[in-house]
Amino acid sequence: MPIRLTRDSADFDQKFRQFLAAKREVSADVEAAARAIVDDVAKRGDAALIEATRKFDRLELDASSLRVTAAEIEAAVKACDAATLDALKFARDRIEAFHLKQLPQDQRFTDEAGVELGWRWSAIESAGLYVPGGTAAYPSSVLMNAIPARVAGVARLVMVVPAPDGKLNPLVLAAAQLGGVSEIYRVGGAQAVAALAHGTATIAPVVKIVGPGNAYVAAAKRLVFGKVGIDMIAGPSEVLVIADDSGNADWIAADLLAQAEHDASAQSILITDSRRLASDVARAVEGQLKTLPRAAIAGASWADFGAIIEVDHLDQAVPLADAIAAEHLEIMTADPDAFAAKVRNAGAIFLGAHTPEAIGDYVGGSNHVLPTARSARFSSGLGVLDFMKRTSLLKCGPDQLRALGPAAMTLGKAEGLDAHSRSVGIRLNLP
Amino acid sequence: MPIRLTRDSADFDQKFRQFLAAKREVSADVEAAARAIVDDVAKRGDAALIEATRKFDRLELDASSLRVTAAEIEAAVKACDAATLDALKFARDRIEAFHLKQLPQDQRFTDEAGVELGWRWSAIESAGLYVPGGTAAYPSSVLMNAIPARVAGVARLVMVVPAPDGKLNPLVLAAAQLGGVSEIYRVGGAQAVAALAHGTATIAPVVKIVGPGNAYVAAAKRLVFGKVGIDMIAGPSEVLVIADDSGNADWIAADLLAQAEHDASAQSILITDSRRLASDVARAVEGQLKTLPRAAIAGASWADFGAIIEVDHLDQAVPLADAIAAEHLEIMTADPDAFAAKVRNAGAIFLGAHTPEAIGDYVGGSNHVLPTARSARFSSGLGVLDFMKRTSLLKCGPDQLRALGPAAMTLGKAEGLDAHSRSVGIRLNLP
Repeated sequence: MPIRLTRDSADFDQKFRQFLAAKREVSADVEAAARAIVDDVAKRGDAALIEATRKFDRLELDASSLRVTAAEIEAAVKACDAATLDALKFARDRIEAFHLKQLPQDQRFTDEAGVELGWRWSAIESAGLYVPGGTAAYPSSVLMNAIPARVAGVARLVMVVPAPDGKLNPLVLAAAQLGGVSEIYRVGGAQAVAALAHGTATIAPVVKIVGPGNAYVAAAKRLVFGKVGIDMIAGPSEVLVIADDSGNADWIAADLLAQAEHDASAQSILITDSRRLASDVARAVEGQLKTLPRAAIAGASWADFGAIIEVDHLDQAVPLADAIAAEHLEIMTADPDAFAAKVRNAGAIFLGAHTPEAIGDYVGGSNHVLPTARSARFSSGLGVLDFMKRTSLLKCGPDQLRALGPAAMTLGKAEGLDAHSRSVGIRLNLP
Repeated sequence: MPIRLTRDSADFDQKFRQFLAAKREVSADVEAAARAIVDDVAKRGDAALIEATRKFDRLELDASSLRVTAAEIEAAVKACDAATLDALKFARDRIEAFHLKQLPQDQRFTDEAGVELGWRWSAIESAGLYVPGGTAAYPSSVLMNAIPARVAGVARLVMVVPAPDGKLNPLVLAAAQLGGVSEIYRVGGAQAVAALAHGTATIAPVVKIVGPGNAYVAAAKRLVFGKVGIDMIAGPSEVLVIADDSGNADWIAADLLAQAEHDASAQSILITDSRRLASDVARAVEGQLKTLPRAAIAGASWADFGAIIEVDHLDQAVPLADAIAAEHLEIMTADPDAFAAKVRNAGAIFLGAHTPEAIGDYVGGSNHVLPTARSARFSSGLGVLDFMKRTSLLKCGPDQLRALGPAAMTLGKAEGLDAHSRSVGIRLNLP
């Protein structure tokens, strides 16, 4: 049974803290194993990559078969259902339109002293997209990772996806083509991350790696962070629904289960000021579970990590929502915009009863790669800026150097950095 | 002697690759030691923090003396030289003015289907600033870390700075006050990072940690990444000067030495198309080294990691500059703006002969916390966005859900996520 908390109970604070602190994932300590794989690929390149693929994916490759060919991609696209391809294209166009609005502006300005200042954004040269294999191989995630990179202007977009027993998901290849991926390699795990970071004879290195993966992939990304950029360490997904008495219990239950079906570690939470709704949703979840194909997964998630929190007044939900910092926040109240304005921490907010989170997963246009595990307190969903970097610009003439130089010299000397001071003084004939 | 490379020599490519790959820092494997400290502080809080401080900083503290008091800060400010304080205030004002221009705009728009989309930026709730102790305790770095956080709107700004043998740098405390730091604790090392990330009875946790530190601090930041946000793993500093024959050899030599004096692992590089200038700069560096207080450090950096690269034509310098991806790039050519436009990878660009990098270190206004060790290929200097996060917003009404819903349902089914599909279908009376 999911946890039921009531805001006005005496032990609420303690129980809510426990709820927040509960670990939803066994943090398998795979660091040593991941490090051995990463080091091996860094040292031996393709040979190590091919060995690891034989071992973990039961797949025999050589340097010439690492890369998925154009003919294979074309064949995969042809094998896809036409309606699904159309839906992918519809999603692609909407995601692209949304992300085009994220392109940043350069800045250049001159201050009162005549100093020219500013900055300039540019795309990173290359990016690696990790795509998990097996059941978690989602074509929608390929679009969500590839399109912001393309919109940013990344010229070389390299996808890695494991092919356990040689199998690849045709829709994933189709999504890669629609998303503008430049190269695809049929490798996965820590070995694929290592190949992207260090490069091999076959796979040229990239400068940043994005995309979700299992514990080995996450550990490998943490290890190569610094040599290359990485996006984030993704955890299990979560949704928080905040609803008042107008909420439709069946709709809310469907949304909670849509989150829960991802993974037994996923989390679905309802906060409401309506005791009636709380009970109706609990009942509706049990009812809908009966006919859900992934009932085992969704049922486990709901039983182990699900929660219904009753508050006296919805204003009490605001600090709770900020503490939870949900990846997805659905607001179904009389004035969802006004309520959303009060919440600080959330990856994405879905406003009103007609915006189920699944719309954002696929076709809304905004990115579905969002901060999990309370990290919306300090990080953002994936976007165009993740594939760009900012270079600052500074320009002084002789007059500006005269105006600013003496203070710089004073600070250089105060910090014991005389050569700093001298590099200014030598231009101004100052000691 | 620094390395001398000539672009048109037969083995240039190989030598340049070796030069790029050369490690400037022994990457001490302190991960296990840092992990033990972090785990201990996470478990035992203040007691572990106080023990580690006794051991590493030779300082006896209790819970009541961890925090630097307002009276201590006032006393420190009074002890500072007035001219230096004025220079710090001048720097503060300019840094603030620059960073105010980085505040991002929220977006909200309605597409042709009537879907409301957009995003909203908000400040993170709290931030921790790590400030190194000893000789690397730079008041200018306190400003560079604190001011973007304040401009972003971070309400709680917590500084940690080790006090070896009980000593704190008064200018660092003064800079903290000028920068709007809310709390200061006299702790450092991995134990301070752990306290900021996990919280103790005395130090409430923060959601993001920024600032440079030694290998233990870097390892601890890597370990707590995910639980909290971190900025970057800082490496030794570097400058690349690109100059044509008009370059002033004495000025350039002073700039190369200003970088070299930071650290024996720092790196100073000149690329020029003028053989005359290359030789003059080499000679000027040797001359200026003779009278430099930090000659031992600067001399070691220049001898071990310094480089002068001669090219036939400055256009050849562009791909070299992109490969080096210098933290600081100074351009002293006839048209520095035009040259800068060709370079993609650099943390900050200093345009023209009258913009020595030291101006940017202190009073230019732009941030001096910049990507090192070639990470300008994929990351940016510290800025206001590092202290904010973006929440995306999506709103459909019934008509919009009808327009977008079927494609979402198709994709949900294609991914085997029937509850996703059902959460849309239940609202549209679709199966």
